[in-house]
Amino acid sequence: MRATVIHAPHDIRVEEVPDPAIQQPTDVVLRVLRACICGSDLWAYRGESARKPGQRIGHEFLGVVEEAGPGVNGFAVGDLVVAPFVWSDGTCTYCAEGLTTSCTQGGFWGSVGSDGGQGEAVRVPFADGTLVKLPAAAASDDRLLTALLALSDVLGTGHHAALGAGVKPGSTVAVVGDGAVGLCGVMAAKRLGAERIIALGRHRSRTDIALAFGATDIVAERGEAALAAVRELTRGEGAHGVIEAVGTEQSMRTAIDIVRDGGSIGYVGVPHGSATGLDLDAMFDRNIALRGGVAPVRTYIPELLPDVLDGTLDPSPVFDLAVGLDQVPGGYKAMDERTALKVIITP
Amino acid sequence: MRATVIHAPHDIRVEEVPDPAIQQPTDVVLRVLRACICGSDLWAYRGESARKPGQRIGHEFLGVVEEAGPGVNGFAVGDLVVAPFVWSDGTCTYCAEGLTTSCTQGGFWGSVGSDGGQGEAVRVPFADGTLVKLPAAAASDDRLLTALLALSDVLGTGHHAALGAGVKPGSTVAVVGDGAVGLCGVMAAKRLGAERIIALGRHRSRTDIALAFGATDIVAERGEAALAAVRELTRGEGAHGVIEAVGTEQSMRTAIDIVRDGGSIGYVGVPHGSATGLDLDAMFDRNIALRGGVAPVRTYIPELLPDVLDGTLDPSPVFDLAVGLDQVPGGYKAMDERTALKVIITP
Repeated sequence: MRATVIHAPHDIRVEEVPDPAIQQPTDVVLRVLRACICGSDLWAYRGESARKPGQRIGHEFLGVVEEAGPGVNGFAVGDLVVAPFVWSDGTCTYCAEGLTTSCTQGGFWGSVGSDGGQGEAVRVPFADGTLVKLPAAAASDDRLLTALLALSDVLGTGHHAALGAGVKPGSTVAVVGDGAVGLCGVMAAKRLGAERIIALGRHRSRTDIALAFGATDIVAERGEAALAAVRELTRGEGAHGVIEAVGTEQSMRTAIDIVRDGGSIGYVGVPHGSATGLDLDAMFDRNIALRGGVAPVRTYIPELLPDVLDGTLDPSPVFDLAVGLDQVPGGYKAMDERTALKVIITP
Repeated sequence: MRATVIHAPHDIRVEEVPDPAIQQPTDVVLRVLRACICGSDLWAYRGESARKPGQRIGHEFLGVVEEAGPGVNGFAVGDLVVAPFVWSDGTCTYCAEGLTTSCTQGGFWGSVGSDGGQGEAVRVPFADGTLVKLPAAAASDDRLLTALLALSDVLGTGHHAALGAGVKPGSTVAVVGDGAVGLCGVMAAKRLGAERIIALGRHRSRTDIALAFGATDIVAERGEAALAAVRELTRGEGAHGVIEAVGTEQSMRTAIDIVRDGGSIGYVGVPHGSATGLDLDAMFDRNIALRGGVAPVRTYIPELLPDVLDGTLDPSPVFDLAVGLDQVPGGYKAMDERTALKVIITP
């Protein structure tokens, strides 16, 4: 089959690789219908996260079960399913508590020795614990299929951020980061009842999506001016909760600046400098909490899925560029240069 | 009157200063019955927190109302009262929500221009918002008076840490720091229903208090060995919550090492290097939350007071050295050299 492989920073190729096969009784082989490129893939693309030459890449996908091991109980050949961005056994104490990202047998797609999502097929370990079934009819609804793909990462990650930010009915929330996760954070905050959602961003195409997703205010300023703008919108106090969906020193500084005393920062941006932006003295004096991390998306899919199926949530607008497998390297380039927000792949 | 003054690192003096007087209608002048020295005072004593020469010091005290301004409604001359370690107006939006440490008119005893607690008397701003009345009979019960003094800071701060660590019935909690706050954190965790309380410490006199306060296990090891010991006590997973009551790089590293994935660190140690110990990558991968900060003790006093009055909570053992006002400089030296755990002062 053909799959995306990373050889070095800025060297993404689509190559012939061995077909995946059942290795364990609990495995499934999945034919990928849709995959996509994540903002976090760009850290590898830019060389800021180490990868071994030849490693697979991509961790967001949905597709059809092509083969199921004898130990798989919940899925049959032909089922349409979505995969979260880590696999998990569904049975350990962490999985039982919903923290599937800490599964004792879990792992990350594209890690050494495992398939990545940006290819024609994927071997899925612990299929019963990992996958979630989708209605078969969705396979022929392109818009819905696109929306459902967001369940593999960005929608659940936005939800995790909103929970970390402590969003509840009536909250004022600010969102740092205008990428797909930040935008899904806007959507998740609205779903949890936030009354005021302040999206920070200066690119009209993105802030328009934020408004469509439920943002009530857009702050285009940066630095001190952004702080002043948020203060003006919040009686001088700041937002009850902030979603930090970038992971840089500057984004974390901004998050701390604009959160209200006693508030919470839901951080889901993979840390790339953000530790340096953590002003612990300020956090201490102002009782600011930091909650979040890698989102246990598998746990959130059953809760979010009905809202996606009935159209209450439609994250599909975050995908603004569609490519075939051959065009994946160009997709990385487009996201890296911010000419695309998020790239969807039809292998 | 006489009060404690800090002139330079390691230069603490007890001097004649102007008698406090009512300046605002909402002031009270309080005659101090008991005060004490805080672990956080040692940061100033050691020169690690800046102080202007001649600044007052001390922020924990209880006493008797000697004079009340015309705008004071809740207190009369002769009332026995305890003060939390910051004053607060009791009426702003933060006070209304219980975050009295963020009061828009609040302040810290011993800050420039205000009285410190380690003296004969204190001018208390916003007395109605700040002070809490105690039963008059307590004034003649030396043990009870000592226990009640802990409400001014360490008991409420331990409670704040336990809340930040997410303690609930059945929790396993680990406590980093064997000072008065850490020990009160043990007591607070037990009160909130923790089933297992692991106190880290190697000084028998302190770990004995931890055991008396409710610790179920003592870990005397440090570094890697401490981590291994906590893992062994927790099925290899770590504690659901950790109380970080020190504030150094090493203590924060230890807290992150020994907390279970998905757990929470309740941090109340004033940061002195602890930001450097925050391994955000590890926290992100393991979904570790950081919650806490300066404790809104005023809010907690009404909840904790009945338990202290009826003897359910008796934090008095944390005070292991009693001095008069003249001996305060020696009290600092004793705490700095760790020959005393916490010094109580009878002016």
